[in-house]
Amino acid sequence: MKRVYNFSAGPAVLPEPVLQQAAAEMLDYQGSGMSVMEMSHRSKVYQKIIDEAEADLRTLLKVPSNYKILFLQGGGTTQFAMVAMNLMTTGVADYIITGQWAKKAFQEAKIYGTPNVIASSEDKNFSEIPDLKNLQYTPEASYVFMCENNTIFGTKFKEYPDTKGKILVNDASSCFLSEPLDVTKFGLIFAGAQKNVGPAGVTIVIIREDLLEISPRDYTPTLLKYKIHADHGSMYNTPPAYAIYICGLVFKYLLNLGGLEAVKANNEKKAAILYDYLDTSKLFKGSVKKSSRSLMNVCFRTNSPELDVAFIEGAKKAGFSNLAGHRSTGGMRASIYNSMPLAGVQALVDYMKEFEAEHLK
Amino acid sequence: MKRVYNFSAGPAVLPEPVLQQAAAEMLDYQGSGMSVMEMSHRSKVYQKIIDEAEADLRTLLKVPSNYKILFLQGGGTTQFAMVAMNLMTTGVADYIITGQWAKKAFQEAKIYGTPNVIASSEDKNFSEIPDLKNLQYTPEASYVFMCENNTIFGTKFKEYPDTKGKILVNDASSCFLSEPLDVTKFGLIFAGAQKNVGPAGVTIVIIREDLLEISPRDYTPTLLKYKIHADHGSMYNTPPAYAIYICGLVFKYLLNLGGLEAVKANNEKKAAILYDYLDTSKLFKGSVKKSSRSLMNVCFRTNSPELDVAFIEGAKKAGFSNLAGHRSTGGMRASIYNSMPLAGVQALVDYMKEFEAEHLK
Repeated sequence: MKRVYNFSAGPAVLPEPVLQQAAAEMLDYQGSGMSVMEMSHRSKVYQKIIDEAEADLRTLLKVPSNYKILFLQGGGTTQFAMVAMNLMTTGVADYIITGQWAKKAFQEAKIYGTPNVIASSEDKNFSEIPDLKNLQYTPEASYVFMCENNTIFGTKFKEYPDTKGKILVNDASSCFLSEPLDVTKFGLIFAGAQKNVGPAGVTIVIIREDLLEISPRDYTPTLLKYKIHADHGSMYNTPPAYAIYICGLVFKYLLNLGGLEAVKANNEKKAAILYDYLDTSKLFKGSVKKSSRSLMNVCFRTNSPELDVAFIEGAKKAGFSNLAGHRSTGGMRASIYNSMPLAGVQALVDYMKEFEAEHLK
Repeated sequence: MKRVYNFSAGPAVLPEPVLQQAAAEMLDYQGSGMSVMEMSHRSKVYQKIIDEAEADLRTLLKVPSNYKILFLQGGGTTQFAMVAMNLMTTGVADYIITGQWAKKAFQEAKIYGTPNVIASSEDKNFSEIPDLKNLQYTPEASYVFMCENNTIFGTKFKEYPDTKGKILVNDASSCFLSEPLDVTKFGLIFAGAQKNVGPAGVTIVIIREDLLEISPRDYTPTLLKYKIHADHGSMYNTPPAYAIYICGLVFKYLLNLGGLEAVKANNEKKAAILYDYLDTSKLFKGSVKKSSRSLMNVCFRTNSPELDVAFIEGAKKAGFSNLAGHRSTGGMRASIYNSMPLAGVQALVDYMKEFEAEHLK
């Protein structure tokens, strides 16, 4: 067995010890005589798995007791609709557009009302986070929507907008659990698991309890109401039970690493290796403004699309997978989530240096 | 490692060879250097996994080329809303009520129009499938809804209603892949995977192509439109990739067993062992009408709730898990899905005989 360095933007690399434990428990979870995949979600043994997952996540993120943690299905894209159907009571909401996913959220909200764009960096190809200092909120806006880390473009909010009491909704999918997060700044945070947390197919929602009392649109499907899931401990219907189990293993792994402060320190070290090299390279250039750089998704390119392709192909042969940029942007993207080892980033930079030496001769 | 006989109604027992393969491939899928959980869903290696899963399912069920196969999220409960939002164009549809799940589907449809109950066995505690001979369809009904196998009550349709050209929608969750199914009788079939197919978190939909041209309600979330998923090969957004991989392994396993005719023969043999004993037992009684008996969920009880509890507890100690009936019905339920071995059913009957001898002294 040889593991590659997997720079996929998601689904993405998971901790090896978690995968090892999952493999070891596949036919018999801790003496239960069955796989977690085979367990009734109403059984005591499974209830303990989901309860521990929730409690560990609460510890990791210091989630206050007036917030519920939900394990849902349907990915961020379903959240785009759920947020609007459940929270856009005035028919108006404010969106900060920092990339494709925020744009998709905005488009979905249009089905349910008249969302406003209050800031956008589209005119700069989303290469930076807009200035948040003088945002003009729409008085009747039900909430303000942001996407904290932009997977495709490699940018990240370094501070949060002061919404003067308006509900702030955060799509945190691609930076979730990469560093501490002040939950109290938000009314609702959601994250698809398939970056730092677990397999695709489970979406984590953290929602302030008072938001559960807002009446959703009449036509909202039962399973797209936050309150239904909150009232049933994420088990109104059968949850994605195995995916939640894997998330739970990851939470325990992160706690054992020392929690999110330790995780952040490691991520900063890894990102610095790559960004420092990009800042000195004569061939490769980082794609985004320094002050907006993501710790998770590092986007860069050479001065020629042909050379980009040659680099990606060469890297693949050398054991670095999934370095192509998103199909909408081209160039390269190295996603260096929590479980990408520092040695992997260092090896990539070594390879980039070789490539640079060869192509700048 | 000791595996128990797991009679859970779902999530439920899976084929051991599938679990073994999943465990063996957990850290390195066929030389890719990564887990299927870690793969980009846009990668060639994953595209092959989902393509093969679809092709194998098409072979197993002889799905005609004018039907699309979709791998979705959200379980049957999400389908209850999707069916109504996408197909109830007239605001009217006909429902056959044979249990809790059909009732829930009917309740969900009420959000979107005025569904009619055209047959129900609720007055008989859902212990049989209603007579389908003289159903009166509502002229303007957009479709007719049925739930083929009723997990909670242990009944199954042995024939299908002749809807005279109206779209027939089948919730086949708990009998899916337990026997051949004539797909051409239906406009749409859906099934949560967590019975015979794979882990909870993926829902299989088989939909006739002409139904994709029907306009859903204006307010339908993007991800609740069948056409979006059909147009994007179930990858409009990140699919539940690992769960689909497990389903694919199960499909190959079933093909290797000889396909669904062979699976059905085995299921009939297993069910007969249990039903034949119930028909002769002086202590245990089957709960449903003989002509409506499910091959998958066998419901029975003694003449006393206390004895039922004693039986369930004794059986658990003897290595038979999850024999309690649904919390809404009480009594016992042995779910004997495809992967419950014949030896497990035989051992259960042996244990029931012992229990009977002891308690009828």
